[in-house]
Amino acid sequence: MKTISNAIPCLVALVSIAVLPGHAQLLVQRFEPVGFSQVTITDRFWKPKLDKVATATLRACIVQTEEKTGRIRNFEKVARHQNEKHEGIYYDDSDVYKALEAMAYSLKNHPDPAIEQKADAWIDKIAAAQLPDGYLNTYYTLTGLDKRWTDMEKHEDYCAGHLFEAAVAYYNTTGKRRLLDVAIRFADHIDSTFRLQNRHWVSGHQEIELALMRLYHLTKQDRYLKLADWFLDQRGHGFGKGVIWDQWKNPKYCQDDVPVKDQKEITGHAVRAMYQYTGAADVAAATNDAGYMNAMKTVWEDVVYRNMYLTGGIGSSGQNEGFTEDYDLPNESAYCETCASVGMVFWNQRMNLLTGESKYIDILERSLYNGALDGLSLSGDRFFYGNPLASAGQYGRSEWFGTACCPSNIARLVASLGDYIYGRSEQGIWVNLFVAGSTTINIGKTAVPVQQETSYPWAGTVRLRVDPARPVTYALHVRIPGWARNVPAPGSLYRFRDTTATAAVEILLNGKPVVFREEKGYAVIDRTWKKGDIVEMKLPMDVRQVASRKEVTSNQGRVALQRGPLVYCVEGADNAGRAWNIVVPDRATFSTKPYQVLDEPVVAILANVSVAEAAPDGLTVQMKPRTITAIPYYAWANRGKSPMQVWLPGRIKAVKLTE
Amino acid sequence: MKTISNAIPCLVALVSIAVLPGHAQLLVQRFEPVGFSQVTITDRFWKPKLDKVATATLRACIVQTEEKTGRIRNFEKVARHQNEKHEGIYYDDSDVYKALEAMAYSLKNHPDPAIEQKADAWIDKIAAAQLPDGYLNTYYTLTGLDKRWTDMEKHEDYCAGHLFEAAVAYYNTTGKRRLLDVAIRFADHIDSTFRLQNRHWVSGHQEIELALMRLYHLTKQDRYLKLADWFLDQRGHGFGKGVIWDQWKNPKYCQDDVPVKDQKEITGHAVRAMYQYTGAADVAAATNDAGYMNAMKTVWEDVVYRNMYLTGGIGSSGQNEGFTEDYDLPNESAYCETCASVGMVFWNQRMNLLTGESKYIDILERSLYNGALDGLSLSGDRFFYGNPLASAGQYGRSEWFGTACCPSNIARLVASLGDYIYGRSEQGIWVNLFVAGSTTINIGKTAVPVQQETSYPWAGTVRLRVDPARPVTYALHVRIPGWARNVPAPGSLYRFRDTTATAAVEILLNGKPVVFREEKGYAVIDRTWKKGDIVEMKLPMDVRQVASRKEVTSNQGRVALQRGPLVYCVEGADNAGRAWNIVVPDRATFSTKPYQVLDEPVVAILANVSVAEAAPDGLTVQMKPRTITAIPYYAWANRGKSPMQVWLPGRIKAVKLTE
Repeated sequence: MKTISNAIPCLVALVSIAVLPGHAQLLVQRFEPVGFSQVTITDRFWKPKLDKVATATLRACIVQTEEKTGRIRNFEKVARHQNEKHEGIYYDDSDVYKALEAMAYSLKNHPDPAIEQKADAWIDKIAAAQLPDGYLNTYYTLTGLDKRWTDMEKHEDYCAGHLFEAAVAYYNTTGKRRLLDVAIRFADHIDSTFRLQNRHWVSGHQEIELALMRLYHLTKQDRYLKLADWFLDQRGHGFGKGVIWDQWKNPKYCQDDVPVKDQKEITGHAVRAMYQYTGAADVAAATNDAGYMNAMKTVWEDVVYRNMYLTGGIGSSGQNEGFTEDYDLPNESAYCETCASVGMVFWNQRMNLLTGESKYIDILERSLYNGALDGLSLSGDRFFYGNPLASAGQYGRSEWFGTACCPSNIARLVASLGDYIYGRSEQGIWVNLFVAGSTTINIGKTAVPVQQETSYPWAGTVRLRVDPARPVTYALHVRIPGWARNVPAPGSLYRFRDTTATAAVEILLNGKPVVFREEKGYAVIDRTWKKGDIVEMKLPMDVRQVASRKEVTSNQGRVALQRGPLVYCVEGADNAGRAWNIVVPDRATFSTKPYQVLDEPVVAILANVSVAEAAPDGLTVQMKPRTITAIPYYAWANRGKSPMQVWLPGRIKAVKLTE
Repeated sequence: MKTISNAIPCLVALVSIAVLPGHAQLLVQRFEPVGFSQVTITDRFWKPKLDKVATATLRACIVQTEEKTGRIRNFEKVARHQNEKHEGIYYDDSDVYKALEAMAYSLKNHPDPAIEQKADAWIDKIAAAQLPDGYLNTYYTLTGLDKRWTDMEKHEDYCAGHLFEAAVAYYNTTGKRRLLDVAIRFADHIDSTFRLQNRHWVSGHQEIELALMRLYHLTKQDRYLKLADWFLDQRGHGFGKGVIWDQWKNPKYCQDDVPVKDQKEITGHAVRAMYQYTGAADVAAATNDAGYMNAMKTVWEDVVYRNMYLTGGIGSSGQNEGFTEDYDLPNESAYCETCASVGMVFWNQRMNLLTGESKYIDILERSLYNGALDGLSLSGDRFFYGNPLASAGQYGRSEWFGTACCPSNIARLVASLGDYIYGRSEQGIWVNLFVAGSTTINIGKTAVPVQQETSYPWAGTVRLRVDPARPVTYALHVRIPGWARNVPAPGSLYRFRDTTATAAVEILLNGKPVVFREEKGYAVIDRTWKKGDIVEMKLPMDVRQVASRKEVTSNQGRVALQRGPLVYCVEGADNAGRAWNIVVPDRATFSTKPYQVLDEPVVAILANVSVAEAAPDGLTVQMKPRTITAIPYYAWANRGKSPMQVWLPGRIKAVKLTE
């Protein structure tokens, strides 16, 4: 068994560029993320959500994993050696690992000995199910080990990846290494079975690449970086033909049509694509490889400029759980799988780390607050698999799914929010997300406690207080959100209709306006910081009307409402049961008010618009001026089924008379 | 090789009840169908369609089968023994057989030496691909014969069934027996491999049962009846577990949850269900088995009273290509696969033969003229796989499909129309469908030429002239269509809203009203018939408004329009691009007019209704009295994509402002 030092930092490793043969090198300015285990969250928006995950969501995951399905029983059966039958589907192990990973993050935010005890008990069962050679997969162990590693489609490596991620997270929170040792043994088994023998294997569902990079950053063992790179490099050479793609599935469905470094557009299954890109960006950041870097930048533009919903959701079609044609973004049938939005958060974080550009965090924030968060009910125990942008009333949240990737995925994302807020290098501090709480960041040998106060996303003021033990010089980078500026990137799918009346972003240092330079989308203040220094950023929180590029035919003549990072929607529950009968005329006026969606305090938008109503005779229609209430998109579908729309007609083209 | 006498009648065999062990016997009055090869069709509605199939549809099938896909090449590859690769999907052979079957029927209606030559050439290739032991399947022969008959899901028996049907049809039209000999050899191979060894095999896609019954009726060899019965009897005992159903597919999906004789409701994949029921009714008719008979009657009520669209289409969900909950009949997302409507025609014909009840022909007619015919474009070379009852403009017809079951299926159905018009016994003649043309029916030793004149379905008069060489006594049964009577069966899904103003059905004998008895839905006239006797039936052709049972929530507050057997729809192409903005108030009035949909002469319905329109300002809505044009449902989607609805609001409940 391989051992690693106890001195592994809980922070991910400092930026160090590994040189792998065959990688063209590029130099970029970089910083590293501050890990969740170093961040305390007290935020009024997020902390209750973290607590809901710690209680309701984890409880749902545990009940489903342990009682209502056989996911945990499968591990017990392997350990018992009684030749018992596997229950469920071949990728069900992954849900156990993802739930464990969510527990790991959650134990940092919301310590709970019962949860930790449960996690330790699961880890015992998992460890007991590992074979002497390191292999660990209940499906093949119970259905026939002779068939292991024969079918690239069967998610063995995907399950392994989720095990690695859980192991790293659990170690980072608790310092306990039992699961990490299991992960390392399994990773070494895979490395020996494939890379070291150059036995081809195209992962049927990418995930192991990014997971190996987590293992690499924690253990600093080059073999995991090399193995991640090797897995990426397996794609696009035809090794998957007839296995993960055939006459039924297109090679593009699996991102296996061309090598990763030659990929230029997103195709196929959205979640597989996201996980692959995350892994590729991770490897690019570690190796400075220009091939991955350029491919990922090109693909990113294809995703964000031609294939992304306003909510940051991606993948318009349920049929392939993925992509169709550019600009094909239907609202009612939008698939926008929760896992794909989670993947957008992962990938955009890595792109930000790779390039230092804040535009990636703009997209991360869009997906996080809208497309991803929508996957979790306000109660924490109901879920959306798909997240459509319009509903005629047919959509409701579920307790669980046969293929249950989404619940534990949104749980682990929310619980790991601390991973996405801050970055650091020896010369600077980066503030990416506006979430009240605190951390301590080392600049050289000086510890710099950072405290953030904000009522974001409801209000636009963010206060950052730094308290270095002694004065220290560094550059503070505060992200100026893309939505607070009025310049859409060339090719952007969406733009604000009104760009004149909006106040500019203001930044104050110790109460006074300060001159800052803008670099890669950040406001940068270079100075020698001292205890008690306060930086305050004020973002304009106007209600904004959004329009789409004309190529998005489903949004033509329509507007959406956005305030801060939040996309809004009109739901029947707030509007006499209707949401499809509204016209937002040019003269519409907007205001905001504090509002409750169940127990969730939100800021609602009130809009003075025109509403089409059936006259009392039931045979004629009349258009009435009405004030409608729009709520944040993430909060819809929590009060039963009712119609909903994000994109509202700005002019009437046609009238449908319907239920 | 088995030989059969040249004296095989082209008519299917006279009704003779085979006694199989274990079948409880029931006695029913029966008649036999007059086969297509004995019927000449001159009808103004149908003959142009038969001609289109003979030219455009068969050409499309031939080009797709022979050139654009590898379906024929697969047979050539088998014959060449060069170890070449199979092209396409494992069930592609079936499309070759179905196209051949369509050619066979078509050669009767529309003789064409080039088509016959093409058919003979294909038959040579098929014969050359048969193995010495009778096995014939290009997929397994090219991908590994060691795997043949190992996977019940892989449609080997389904392809065999389609071969048998093609062989019987081609023999019936041409008297050529080459393909029939191939079929017989393969059927004997299957019988020896399974039934005679009692080796379990649950067909993954039923079809072989009904096909074996065709072979039985032609050859009168008991072993095919026994084998059909054996295949049916394999279901519902768990033999399909883990093979055709598993954790992914429910046993109900495959109609394999209970034995066929215990089945009480339709479940799962609609086409598989239809083919199974057709085979079961066939076996029941041949054996008088009470088990199959009662099961099929119970299941029929479940289909027709709880799960059938007004168009006779079935299977509301695309996800399983089949059934969901009772009364779940959404219109816009209706799947209603063309093949399932074709299957409804098959099954209802067999139920009519089994029971003598005309209600089955009412349903056959509904499916034929609406749900099935809609699958074929007016041009004959475009197809619908699904046939929704509402479109927001998204649906268009296709040239072909990857899984190409529907095009050749609708081709063979239309081309075999002659099979469904007449029935006979030693004591009577039955007229089931109203299609102009002629046949000759033997009563005892007297040939009775029957000539039918009608402009059905556009006009309600049907004239039947009989010309027996000498006076002959028999009972003439003329179906009185269910739609021409006002009594819905208890539990019927649909009823006419207006039941008072309609004229009664009139029947004249040689110009004078005649007293007839009504039996099993037929007007029966018993007499001694002489040359030149003319029976005339006059059906009321009013425009009827249809309402649904309240359980069908998707149709609540809505009405549909029907005239004669035809269901109508409102399509944007005739109504300024809109079809969802119409209210049919109680005071709506209707008239009809001759109309053209491309080159198709139809009777259109004009309706004075209320239409919601966007006012010129684009911001308000107004309700205007308008005359809209409704066309027969089967004729929609021939003029590009535009919105369409069958069920129109009778009162406004809600208003959607939309594209």
